[in-house]
Amino acid sequence: MNLNLIKSLIIPAQTKIVMLIMDGLGGLPREPGGKTELETAHTPNLDALAAMSSLGLTIPVAPGITPGSGPGHLAIFGYDPLLYKIGRGAMEALGIDFEMGPDDLAARGNFCSVDSEGMIIDRRAGRIGTNINQELARLLLTINIEGAEIFIEPIKEHRFVFILRASGLYDSLSETDPQKTGVPPQPVCALEPKSEKAAALVNQFINSAQKALINKHPANMILLRGFAKLPVLPTYQDKYGLKAAAIAINGMYRGVARLVGMQVLDVNGQTLNDELMTLDKYWNDYDFFYLHVKKIDTFGEQGDFEGKVKAIEEVDALLPRLTAHKPDVIVVGGDHSSPSVLKSHSWHPVPVLIYSPFARPDEISEFGEHACSRGSLGTIPATHIMPMALANALRIAKYGA
Amino acid sequence: MNLNLIKSLIIPAQTKIVMLIMDGLGGLPREPGGKTELETAHTPNLDALAAMSSLGLTIPVAPGITPGSGPGHLAIFGYDPLLYKIGRGAMEALGIDFEMGPDDLAARGNFCSVDSEGMIIDRRAGRIGTNINQELARLLLTINIEGAEIFIEPIKEHRFVFILRASGLYDSLSETDPQKTGVPPQPVCALEPKSEKAAALVNQFINSAQKALINKHPANMILLRGFAKLPVLPTYQDKYGLKAAAIAINGMYRGVARLVGMQVLDVNGQTLNDELMTLDKYWNDYDFFYLHVKKIDTFGEQGDFEGKVKAIEEVDALLPRLTAHKPDVIVVGGDHSSPSVLKSHSWHPVPVLIYSPFARPDEISEFGEHACSRGSLGTIPATHIMPMALANALRIAKYGA
Repeated sequence: MNLNLIKSLIIPAQTKIVMLIMDGLGGLPREPGGKTELETAHTPNLDALAAMSSLGLTIPVAPGITPGSGPGHLAIFGYDPLLYKIGRGAMEALGIDFEMGPDDLAARGNFCSVDSEGMIIDRRAGRIGTNINQELARLLLTINIEGAEIFIEPIKEHRFVFILRASGLYDSLSETDPQKTGVPPQPVCALEPKSEKAAALVNQFINSAQKALINKHPANMILLRGFAKLPVLPTYQDKYGLKAAAIAINGMYRGVARLVGMQVLDVNGQTLNDELMTLDKYWNDYDFFYLHVKKIDTFGEQGDFEGKVKAIEEVDALLPRLTAHKPDVIVVGGDHSSPSVLKSHSWHPVPVLIYSPFARPDEISEFGEHACSRGSLGTIPATHIMPMALANALRIAKYGA
Repeated sequence: MNLNLIKSLIIPAQTKIVMLIMDGLGGLPREPGGKTELETAHTPNLDALAAMSSLGLTIPVAPGITPGSGPGHLAIFGYDPLLYKIGRGAMEALGIDFEMGPDDLAARGNFCSVDSEGMIIDRRAGRIGTNINQELARLLLTINIEGAEIFIEPIKEHRFVFILRASGLYDSLSETDPQKTGVPPQPVCALEPKSEKAAALVNQFINSAQKALINKHPANMILLRGFAKLPVLPTYQDKYGLKAAAIAINGMYRGVARLVGMQVLDVNGQTLNDELMTLDKYWNDYDFFYLHVKKIDTFGEQGDFEGKVKAIEEVDALLPRLTAHKPDVIVVGGDHSSPSVLKSHSWHPVPVLIYSPFARPDEISEFGEHACSRGSLGTIPATHIMPMALANALRIAKYGA
């Protein structure tokens, strides 16, 4: 979609839009002729909503392309994921809910083992315990780099997120991880002249880290890769005229929502019910709510067909809590498919419904992959959903006379 | 669609194509689970044609975008309406069937009221009667601008179309209407150097108009906005190799058809029957006929569900008059939707059918929104229709060996 076209036609309105994203929603049958997870699930509330909605299937990135969570979300938020990219380091930082700012440069970090010659002997330092990781992170935080601030955020085992905060940093940097053993970690090189300051500061940190860790075998060195700053995206306010809020538990989704200018709301708990309490609390304060449910994807990635079915049924059971607010527009969809038979994200188009009093109902009383493939929206780029949601919210003026 | 691709593959043929455009055809049900206007209408002839046709839904501009009549028509004629734009002034001129030429610059005009200081006190001059408008227009026509010709075409109440005819005019001009009261009308400014001649001539006219109207309170001044020349479009002859004719009553549609190089035929009367008489008369003289029916949109915009149903039924009743000519290809569609529940144009995809002996029939014996959403054409850009019509008329050669 042409974002400038939408922006030029946006008109104010009092309407509210809720976008419910069931992460990894799309699936596959377990055997030929079988039903998918969503079709197997008993979903009377979603089916009733589908009967009043326009149905379709969304392609997040491009036909045949399996999206990561970042691109999948950018697409359903209306941003072409081939145009707007979030680098690996930035995704890692978002994933742990680290609030990256415009001066921050992030990278994925590993503790690794090197021999007395400095050659890598284990890229994962024998997968040290997370507690050792945390202790070493505290040690690394004592390193002083003049003119810069350092953050080391432990994740699990040998993994951490490295963030360098300073003005004038650019992320065209080579990686230090040679992705093999028997060679030393590489120094960071600036791939463009403007990245030289960042390269110098990172190398200075790595040298200090090497000295600090010298007696900490097996975790006696670090590897950094995927250097990335946050991309600058037009915001929901700017491009859609929407005061938007995000309700999500996991850091990555909160981070992507923040990136497009949504206010990320606090959720007091870990369940969908807790998320819906947040929706209740803030209902009057925003035009647009992004509501994210992670569990469906988790079961899909684990290959747990029944678990995914149950997770979908849980969402269905709580749907009346959402519809009770009588949003003017409801979008139910996903950021990508995660069929349990593949135990991973996949390229399959994702079921979607758009409900509003002005959505043309397809009269298909079922929300599922086959039902949606017969819907009037067709099989369409995920980026088309937001313009249609805005149209149904009567927030787009007529184009031309 | 890539117009150059089509143009490069066009081959001559003796086949005839008729495109029947039911303005504002698409609709919505009045209540959940109900039928749309088109589905409610008793349309045995359209249904029988649908059974032999390929069906689908067209998106005129882009998903979620509500088209004006200009963009809606350009799209169904095969021209990307985001690429080819008709400015407001030009649309107004087309709307009153004024035959704009390449030297003409048009604008929307208002008579307005100013106080003794020249400040606007009423942007619409108290909505003066159309007869006063006509009288003042005659007065303004006495103004002499050296090197230019002026046309003032009264519309209704305070509104008129202003046309300046001279060589070397460009339409990058600011508007004189400040869109508020308490300030004077603005002089026209050239927004690009090449528009300076036009700005000077328009300002000269406005100064003369001010003097001419000084004692004509409440209509003692004019406001001009939406300056536009006609865009230059490739013609039907040039891009499709078609000798094309337009049969339409209302000026705007006749104007857009003229813009794409169609011969606009005289219609002796105001009804579809009169239009079909014109079709009979000129049947042998053209390859392509665009036949426009306005009434359906009019009822939609008035919120008159039953009126729209009846207008569709009237078209259906006369359809045999069209099919009796045995066109090789028949397209029935619309330029946009106009659901009576919205009382306006809308973004909803528009039902379309393509009949020819070589169109793959979908065997759906019904022409309606839901039926078309199940059609084999899918939900597609309206610009795809003309290439398919030409293909079905065996007018496009094979691409590549």
